[in-house]
Amino acid sequence: MTVTVDFIYDFGSPNAYLCHKVIPDIEARTGVSFNYIPCLLGGIFKATGNMAPAFAFAKIKGKLDYDRIEIDRFVKTHGLTDYRFNNHFPVQTLLMMRAAVAAQMAGQHDAYIEAGMRAMWEEGLKMDDPQVFAQAMTDAGLDGEALLARSQAPEVKAQLVANTAAAVERRVFGIPSFFVGSELFFGKERLGQVEDEIRAQLAAT
Amino acid sequence: MTVTVDFIYDFGSPNAYLCHKVIPDIEARTGVSFNYIPCLLGGIFKATGNMAPAFAFAKIKGKLDYDRIEIDRFVKTHGLTDYRFNNHFPVQTLLMMRAAVAAQMAGQHDAYIEAGMRAMWEEGLKMDDPQVFAQAMTDAGLDGEALLARSQAPEVKAQLVANTAAAVERRVFGIPSFFVGSELFFGKERLGQVEDEIRAQLAAT
Repeated sequence: MTVTVDFIYDFGSPNAYLCHKVIPDIEARTGVSFNYIPCLLGGIFKATGNMAPAFAFAKIKGKLDYDRIEIDRFVKTHGLTDYRFNNHFPVQTLLMMRAAVAAQMAGQHDAYIEAGMRAMWEEGLKMDDPQVFAQAMTDAGLDGEALLARSQAPEVKAQLVANTAAAVERRVFGIPSFFVGSELFFGKERLGQVEDEIRAQLAAT
Repeated sequence: MTVTVDFIYDFGSPNAYLCHKVIPDIEARTGVSFNYIPCLLGGIFKATGNMAPAFAFAKIKGKLDYDRIEIDRFVKTHGLTDYRFNNHFPVQTLLMMRAAVAAQMAGQHDAYIEAGMRAMWEEGLKMDDPQVFAQAMTDAGLDGEALLARSQAPEVKAQLVANTAAAVERRVFGIPSFFVGSELFFGKERLGQVEDEIRAQLAAT
C-alpha cells in the first residue's frame, strides 16, 4: 500500500501558487508525489456557498491586511522572490482550468501547471483573455492554440465539472486543499500538517 | 533588550483555550513568558465588522465541519483530553473578561485564567450566569463574590474597554491573536510561527 496525496488546485488562488512552489520540497523529503487535480474554484464556491477571501473579508477591518502579511511571510520563509500579485485579480479561470484538464489528457499536465502558475503569479498576465492565454502557453513551449481549442471539447468541460463535483463531495470548500489518503487539509498554513500526515501514513503502511 | 509576547485572549474562544494549553510548552522551550491581555472578543468583532466563525461560516458547506476536524487534530496532537465543547456556546463573556481585569489588578490573573479556561472548556459551565461564575471561581480557590463585585467597578470596566481598543488599534480582528514584539499572528495554526519568531527575535537581541 502506498500513500496518496491529492492537491485540489485552481490557478486563481495565490495561495495555490505558493503551495505549488513548496510542494517539490515536501515531495523530495517524503518521496511521495502530489497528484494535482484541476478544479474550478468558482464552482466550489457556488456549490458550498463560499466566496473568495478578497470579497468575504473585505469589510473586516485588518483581516485582508493580515492575510497579505502572511503571504509576505510565506514568500520570505521559502525565498519565493518571483511571486507578484496579479493586478488583473480576480482572473476568471474557467479557460485555464478547462485547458488544464486538456493538458492532463494530453500527458502535458506538469508543464502546463508550471506555465500557468508562472503566467498568473510571476508574470501577472490576464489569463482569462484567450489571446493572452494562447500566447503565454506557446511562449512556455506548449501549443497555445491547440489548448485553446481543446478547452472547448465537451469531454474536457465535463471532466472539469466532474473533478469539481468530486472535490465538493469530498468536503472541499476552498483552495488550496489537500487530501492525504482521506484526510482533508485546507490552506497553506497546513502544509506542515500535510507533511506530518504523509509521514504518519508512510509509517503505518 | 528582551522579547515581548502578548496573547490577546477571551474565554469565549475555544481556540484560545487550546492555545492556552500549549503555551506553557512554548514558554519552557524558549524561556519567554506570554503576557495574557484580557480583551472582549465581542468588542473586537464590533469594532472590525467581524463575527464568530460559528456564525460567519454557518452557511458554507463543509467549513465548520473542517474547523471541528482541526480542533480534534489539535486536541489529539497535544493530548488535550480534558477539552469539551461548551454546550452553552456562545457564552457571553463580558462578566468573565471584566473579572479577568479585576483579577489582574489584584495580582491573581494566572489563577483566574486557569479557573476560567477550565470552567468554560473542560467543565462546560454557563459562565455568563453570575451565580455559576461566582461558584466556579470559589470552587477554584478564588473569591467568586468579590470578583463578581469588582467586575462592576468603573475602573475595571474602563480597563477592559481600553485593552480591547488597544488590540484593535494594533490590527487585531479576532482571537486567539499574538504579538511577538510588533509582529501579529492570528489563530492556533500560527503557534509554530509564533515560536519561530520568538527564537528569531531572541537571536537578534
